[in-house]
Amino acid sequence: MNINTIQKLTKLIRYYILTMTTTAGSGHTTSSLSAVELMTALMFGGFFRTDLSNRQNPTNDRLIFSKGHASPLFYSLYAAAGKISMDELLQYRKFSSPLEGHPTLEFPYTEAPTGSLGQGLPIGLGMAMALRQLTGPAAHVSQRYDTSPVGTPRSRHPSIPIVYVLLGDGEMAEGSVWEAIQAASYNNVDNLVAVLDVNRLGQSQPTMFEHHLDEYKKRFEVFGWKTVIVKNGHDLSQVVTAYKAMQKLSGHGKPVAIIAKTFKGYGIKSLQDKDNWHGKPLPKDLYDQAIKELGNVDMKIRGEVKKPVLSSKYQVSSMKKNIPNKKYVIRNTIYKFGDSIATRQAAGDALTSLMYTYTNVVVLDGDVKNSLFTETTQREHRERYFEMFIAEQNMTGTAIGFSRRGFIPFMTTFSAFMTRAYDQIRMAALAKANIKFLGSHAGVSIGEDGASQMGLEDLSMFRSIWGSSVLYPADGVSTAKLMEEMIKKPGISYIRVARPTTSVIYDEKEEFPIGGSKLHTLSSRAKRGDPGVGSGIASPASRDRNDNKKVIIIAAGITLYEALKAQEELGKEGIEAIVVDCYSIKPIDKKTLIDLIKPSTTNYQPITNIITVEDHWFEGGLGDAVLNVYATEQKVKVYKLAVTKLPHSGKPAELLEYEGISTKGIVSKVKEILQ
Amino acid sequence: MNINTIQKLTKLIRYYILTMTTTAGSGHTTSSLSAVELMTALMFGGFFRTDLSNRQNPTNDRLIFSKGHASPLFYSLYAAAGKISMDELLQYRKFSSPLEGHPTLEFPYTEAPTGSLGQGLPIGLGMAMALRQLTGPAAHVSQRYDTSPVGTPRSRHPSIPIVYVLLGDGEMAEGSVWEAIQAASYNNVDNLVAVLDVNRLGQSQPTMFEHHLDEYKKRFEVFGWKTVIVKNGHDLSQVVTAYKAMQKLSGHGKPVAIIAKTFKGYGIKSLQDKDNWHGKPLPKDLYDQAIKELGNVDMKIRGEVKKPVLSSKYQVSSMKKNIPNKKYVIRNTIYKFGDSIATRQAAGDALTSLMYTYTNVVVLDGDVKNSLFTETTQREHRERYFEMFIAEQNMTGTAIGFSRRGFIPFMTTFSAFMTRAYDQIRMAALAKANIKFLGSHAGVSIGEDGASQMGLEDLSMFRSIWGSSVLYPADGVSTAKLMEEMIKKPGISYIRVARPTTSVIYDEKEEFPIGGSKLHTLSSRAKRGDPGVGSGIASPASRDRNDNKKVIIIAAGITLYEALKAQEELGKEGIEAIVVDCYSIKPIDKKTLIDLIKPSTTNYQPITNIITVEDHWFEGGLGDAVLNVYATEQKVKVYKLAVTKLPHSGKPAELLEYEGISTKGIVSKVKEILQ
Repeated sequence: MNINTIQKLTKLIRYYILTMTTTAGSGHTTSSLSAVELMTALMFGGFFRTDLSNRQNPTNDRLIFSKGHASPLFYSLYAAAGKISMDELLQYRKFSSPLEGHPTLEFPYTEAPTGSLGQGLPIGLGMAMALRQLTGPAAHVSQRYDTSPVGTPRSRHPSIPIVYVLLGDGEMAEGSVWEAIQAASYNNVDNLVAVLDVNRLGQSQPTMFEHHLDEYKKRFEVFGWKTVIVKNGHDLSQVVTAYKAMQKLSGHGKPVAIIAKTFKGYGIKSLQDKDNWHGKPLPKDLYDQAIKELGNVDMKIRGEVKKPVLSSKYQVSSMKKNIPNKKYVIRNTIYKFGDSIATRQAAGDALTSLMYTYTNVVVLDGDVKNSLFTETTQREHRERYFEMFIAEQNMTGTAIGFSRRGFIPFMTTFSAFMTRAYDQIRMAALAKANIKFLGSHAGVSIGEDGASQMGLEDLSMFRSIWGSSVLYPADGVSTAKLMEEMIKKPGISYIRVARPTTSVIYDEKEEFPIGGSKLHTLSSRAKRGDPGVGSGIASPASRDRNDNKKVIIIAAGITLYEALKAQEELGKEGIEAIVVDCYSIKPIDKKTLIDLIKPSTTNYQPITNIITVEDHWFEGGLGDAVLNVYATEQKVKVYKLAVTKLPHSGKPAELLEYEGISTKGIVSKVKEILQ
Repeated sequence: MNINTIQKLTKLIRYYILTMTTTAGSGHTTSSLSAVELMTALMFGGFFRTDLSNRQNPTNDRLIFSKGHASPLFYSLYAAAGKISMDELLQYRKFSSPLEGHPTLEFPYTEAPTGSLGQGLPIGLGMAMALRQLTGPAAHVSQRYDTSPVGTPRSRHPSIPIVYVLLGDGEMAEGSVWEAIQAASYNNVDNLVAVLDVNRLGQSQPTMFEHHLDEYKKRFEVFGWKTVIVKNGHDLSQVVTAYKAMQKLSGHGKPVAIIAKTFKGYGIKSLQDKDNWHGKPLPKDLYDQAIKELGNVDMKIRGEVKKPVLSSKYQVSSMKKNIPNKKYVIRNTIYKFGDSIATRQAAGDALTSLMYTYTNVVVLDGDVKNSLFTETTQREHRERYFEMFIAEQNMTGTAIGFSRRGFIPFMTTFSAFMTRAYDQIRMAALAKANIKFLGSHAGVSIGEDGASQMGLEDLSMFRSIWGSSVLYPADGVSTAKLMEEMIKKPGISYIRVARPTTSVIYDEKEEFPIGGSKLHTLSSRAKRGDPGVGSGIASPASRDRNDNKKVIIIAAGITLYEALKAQEELGKEGIEAIVVDCYSIKPIDKKTLIDLIKPSTTNYQPITNIITVEDHWFEGGLGDAVLNVYATEQKVKVYKLAVTKLPHSGKPAELLEYEGISTKGIVSKVKEILQ
């Protein structure tokens, strides 16, 4: 399309932006106006190549608005492309409308929801890496294993689509942006293009560098990016020239940044480059003035978006295609009852095995592969294993990008450091992302490394994520099984694994559905031949016992073993404890937990005393999940044992003792209750 | 001290490191060995000036190990200074020992706990800014208001102490580090020195840039730092020369980075520059070999740390000194019953007022001052108001630094974006930091901006922080009062304020202690002349009522108003609802909540039905806090109303309705329960 047509489209788009925000009575008018030329030229100048009628075409270019508050511009582009109507634009920000204040998946052309600044580029990076996996020749994919200091440029194959990310200058202060900038150049992701809209004004004052484009240019370049400067981001010929330069630069080993000087509110005198207009629409009178200022607007004109060209030489590879289809080795079959294995190792082993079957699983590692036993995973699945170094925010954003293109990413680090990415995890839920978080070294049971390394708020954090599953297996078998359950269930799952070795207590044939639990009575353990249980104190005797001497102990992970030992000790004193392995903390096995307290063949009266025990802060973990189950159950009393004192370095056993979540702590609590 | 003496000290320190880790059976031996020369020369070469016998001396230089896993080196330095004994070193990582796996406040020379990588520099930045406030001439302090692109160098006054931060190369991938690097140069913090220990190896593989010092040098420089390269970080003469260069560079407007090439495990053949030795001590046999390798160690030698020189020309200013002591204007006295004011505005106004009384309060703003009404705060308290731009991780780290030097920082942003700093907030708890988090725009009640801007996990997040207070006031008066209560109570507090205006329902004379609550009955409201309450339906009538028709509704913030309206509607139908304003979610007012359900002069039977209603995800918020209160109370049934569906953009009222937390939702829930 020629510049005159694009010029006309910018007028139409400005008209849309002004009208939809004034009609809505809210919205970020000025932040949208600054990027009109940048985005209109990209989309309708023949640079952005995508099939608007087939969103799943793997060769589509992708566009992400990291500055999500510019949603009026975002929606207007698709209106100018004829994909949505004026009437739809006028529904902007209304409850019933898919055109939300910040882009969400309700709008079909949104690649990922944004609105929390600094998250678009990590997502774009993940998407660009995913597209390279899907469409690139193996040689290209293998680039990323070049770990010598920043690899030498290779020519990107034209079949690999480009991901464009519109960034605001305000969000350049976010470290997550620099994590992504660093990772993109390190991995030679040359199908990623950042468009930086330097409009000088943040929300409450000028940005750090205002219009000093060079401050951004030199930073991008020193981080290994190619850059193109646009001195006037409202001069279409300059903008078009910049995109042409970008086309030459991209695909040659490095990502490209287009850095453009713009003005917030450009084109409207009352707004342009003025303070205190952030996130505000024009009132009616100024709106009318503004529309006059725009002059003639061609309301009929529509822009054309070019379709992607699929290279003749290269086929788009199916996800399976790049992947060796070796036989699926179920490593967890080696776990025999009584074996000792850390759940973190079982998780790593299971991941390595499962990736043979689930060929769309990818792994993002935060430099912990020697703690999570995923070094084997990397060796056996090079094409789908990405070392992301110590940058959890970017890892999570990248995972969102992979997920949005159909992969199932595992984000792996210590459970304590999942906190680093909470904002990204929150946004992943809005993106309905299919991400599996694998967090190791949970709780005080890590011991000597001390409190800074102990994940003690992870269960709380992930429970509060919309639609999440939260899993906490105790032994190798349940861990391996749950790793597969996670993959099978779409959405965000978190699995918490521990550092110490624990003994295998389940048979490999047992199933561990998400939302389930396992009951342990002395008799069931005796049947299973559990060495901890003497034959004398199996359940039959308990029939004669007073139900008031019954208690339910609900535990998970490391504390399950403490609970089982407590069960033995209590049994010797004529107190029957039913131990629940609550490996699925969300969703929790409500039915089983409710049935347990009801009178039954073994309980003649309802059981009223329940104890929860967890290696997690008192708030938000297993105990609170259980409280919710019994919230409206009268008669029931729930006693919570959890981490309440600031933990030290020390031996795991000492720490469990110190926090009162050891066998001893459980036993004395039970006695105190039953007194 | 001369180089030979320092050389001897490095030998002693290597001996300490090897011995304490092998004795402990764990610890990061190799990561400690790489920085021995860098830290020994700093501490004993006359560069680091501090009064080890008076930790509170405001002119002390400060040393932070951002790579906290090098704790064996950290402790060994103080042993070499004669401050701790060999016996104490041998207690390393034992439960009873203050020498934990990563530095904590148990050890008196720890400035702030570290161990979560990438956090030391933000903390150091805050500390450097705090020391500048305490000891610098006003002219110097005022530098930071120079918002023209990176200010011109000014000569630092010698009385201003320097904060040194030891960084690892692995953590340079963390965005939080780049946030701090950017903020430090932008604010011309020239009393901050980073010492980068480039030992080439991360935990599980080589770092991104291995030994390419230039990759770090050019990044630091482009971000506005001065740099000094040390080609061989184990050659003491090179290291000493570098510190001399640093002395010339620092204090001239910009922070300084010393970038040194080192080897992990340096000095011990079996370890040096070898993979798979991260976080591992030497086994006995290799240890003996290593000690031989060390040769003669002078066990008697001790190093001397120079005391700070306080400039004759400048006095150290007390915190009050730099601060205008205008009269304390209690702005909240303007709030009259029935007034409409948003709690976010009340919070901003209160902050401005309170800063006149509490002269050690500082504010760190994430570019939201026009949303939080803290523009006035900035105008009236320039010396203590810091615009930190959109970088929540660095803001929180900086707050820790300020807090550790005796200030009370407020960290202000949207409640949704507090999630960005969860790891830093977690670490702030370990630092026993005295930080006040002010989070606005909480919940679905923000309306049109949509889900990405809605803080819906903030209560859960802060409840799970050790020792925290979590506050959620409903009106202007309670907000203003709680702002002062927060300041008076040491430790981490979070106050959640809302976007919409709400009517003032409390008298300015009422008190709002942390841990308290307020009860609202129809009669109490009638007494107060609450317009919502018709005289006909006051409490006396309720005496005749069946207690089974009584219900307790526990709410906070925006939902309190929905609950009060529900109370009116229910009253008309002969259902008496006691409404609790649970403004203190942690600690929660357990006594009042328990008393409420007991038989009393107004209740002839215990009240069994309790409803909680909150503008927060179902998990981890007010409802879960209440469940904990009644956990062991039989008879009681708790029904939770909370946000369960993914929210849209829309009108606040529509969204409260949609989530079932509006008046209508409450009323229908009560009727359902009482059926």
